[in-house]
Amino acid sequence: MKKFVNDPKSYVPEMLEGVALANPGTLRYIPAYNLIMRSDAPSESKVSIVQGSGSGHEPAHVMAVGKGMLDAACPGDVFAAPPMDYVYETAKLLASPMGVLLLVNNYTGDRMAFDMGKEMADADGIRCEILTINDDVAVQDSLYTVGRRGVAGNFFVIKAVGAAAEQGASIDDLLRIGRKVNDVTRTMGVALTACTPPAKGSPLFELGADEIEFGVGIHGEPGRERRKLASADQIVDDMLDAVVPDLPYESGDRVALMINGLGGTPISELYILYRRAHQRLADRGITIGRSYVNEYCTSLDMAGASLTLVRLDDEIEPLLTAPAEAAVRIF
Amino acid sequence: MKKFVNDPKSYVPEMLEGVALANPGTLRYIPAYNLIMRSDAPSESKVSIVQGSGSGHEPAHVMAVGKGMLDAACPGDVFAAPPMDYVYETAKLLASPMGVLLLVNNYTGDRMAFDMGKEMADADGIRCEILTINDDVAVQDSLYTVGRRGVAGNFFVIKAVGAAAEQGASIDDLLRIGRKVNDVTRTMGVALTACTPPAKGSPLFELGADEIEFGVGIHGEPGRERRKLASADQIVDDMLDAVVPDLPYESGDRVALMINGLGGTPISELYILYRRAHQRLADRGITIGRSYVNEYCTSLDMAGASLTLVRLDDEIEPLLTAPAEAAVRIF
Repeated sequence: MKKFVNDPKSYVPEMLEGVALANPGTLRYIPAYNLIMRSDAPSESKVSIVQGSGSGHEPAHVMAVGKGMLDAACPGDVFAAPPMDYVYETAKLLASPMGVLLLVNNYTGDRMAFDMGKEMADADGIRCEILTINDDVAVQDSLYTVGRRGVAGNFFVIKAVGAAAEQGASIDDLLRIGRKVNDVTRTMGVALTACTPPAKGSPLFELGADEIEFGVGIHGEPGRERRKLASADQIVDDMLDAVVPDLPYESGDRVALMINGLGGTPISELYILYRRAHQRLADRGITIGRSYVNEYCTSLDMAGASLTLVRLDDEIEPLLTAPAEAAVRIF
Repeated sequence: MKKFVNDPKSYVPEMLEGVALANPGTLRYIPAYNLIMRSDAPSESKVSIVQGSGSGHEPAHVMAVGKGMLDAACPGDVFAAPPMDYVYETAKLLASPMGVLLLVNNYTGDRMAFDMGKEMADADGIRCEILTINDDVAVQDSLYTVGRRGVAGNFFVIKAVGAAAEQGASIDDLLRIGRKVNDVTRTMGVALTACTPPAKGSPLFELGADEIEFGVGIHGEPGRERRKLASADQIVDDMLDAVVPDLPYESGDRVALMINGLGGTPISELYILYRRAHQRLADRGITIGRSYVNEYCTSLDMAGASLTLVRLDDEIEPLLTAPAEAAVRIF
């Protein structure tokens, strides 16, 4: 295993400590609960937005904490749900009279932890609501899910509800907005290589030198099938053929297009994918209103990418363009 | 070779086309010269800032074009200098009565192309000046350089002269500022793996399963030595031991600290490196005024990272914090 790591057991806490040290004054790290939170949260005049999930998907979600985004992220260990009591303690720390919105990608372990954490917080009189994200079109059920998985599209839910919360929206309105964004968001991913979890020290699965996993999950879960490596253009066409008819996205639609790197793929390749996706969507009469080409939700060092579409409307687009801050910036 | 690529010959133009398509209205792509430029450049009231270099280092430099950053980037093919006539045509397209500042990382091929391109532009009456960046402390001379190499620290030169140019600084003042930033900037890089250029299709060099290249260049050039893989903390300590005494950075100094990923390393690991660097600099009495943890200047899909320090003062720091825009954003 060739990684920048000390003890694999300290991978997550050391990363979180780094995130907090790099953002003095704006972020706080609470080691007892693996928690990264805004220094100025909670606020009495806004709903607190919290995302939980396993680690290993950075910048999701601990680096998406900031004004207009998340108030806190409560990750578990690499590819592991946070313990229910971390969720409970997070809800207590973030308790606002307007409520706490818990964003959960659809994995059975995460849902269980958040359901139980919410129950414990409810018993304390903290109003919590859970919003589940399931944008991955690859498979209906999976190794760790009943129903579809939540993957990179959850960025758009975070961004939209984060902006609306900053504007004072109620928790009921945030639930409506978040569900609406999730409902018009679809993602498909492809792995060129497996990832190597620090505690395992070897690749999570095997892929032949000329094979790709079409529809891979962000924990290396199987997708639709193993395929032969194809050209960048062919892979994009195949991803679009999976994503576009699923909603469906249709001629005349205005969309956000995200090409998300899975951790080991350089951004140059992501723009090669973007180019084809842009051209093919134009061919279908679909207009790209917003473009996102970067790493948003990764799978450690996996080489691969995912493609996400969001159908925009007059409510969603201004929320995506609203000001926001987060730990990760290019300048 | 497992990459998202069509024909390796079209790697760079397809990437550039993607960058332009993702930034309609703000960026233009001129295929004839591999050129990405601001749509509103040149301006009569500001010096044009241009960076040239090989491709394969993205987001450097084509994704650093935007207001308050570069007016244009003129890359060659992967790891190849741009042809001199591309530099000349770029200078003509970006010609401003206030002049054109050409930023060049110190590699013999790039310097030759830019010296000749500048001569051709001079003959046309376009005032061009060249500013050479050489922040890499690893080796004095290298495979492709006389003197030190220019690596990730060039981001700070771009950011500072980009901001000053936006404020109306003269080309003489920009030369002074850029040289000053370069003079207080030092970088050291480490490779865990080699990179694979698309046209070669196989790793550029061999590294054993337990070896790292300490002081690697961004084209895979040898550094100071092959070493055994060590802990993240030990690697940071070794990088700091190379960088800190070189200026030297001293107790009481205020610095910018950059942990730059080389392309294949996930951002989670970069924050593990950042944590240690922050702690060890604090131990030395050095204050971190600005932190940068992301990919800035990569080497295709190389797993690895570099550490850069910039000594801040009352002139440099406001230029680094001035507003800027570029193709790469996280939201």
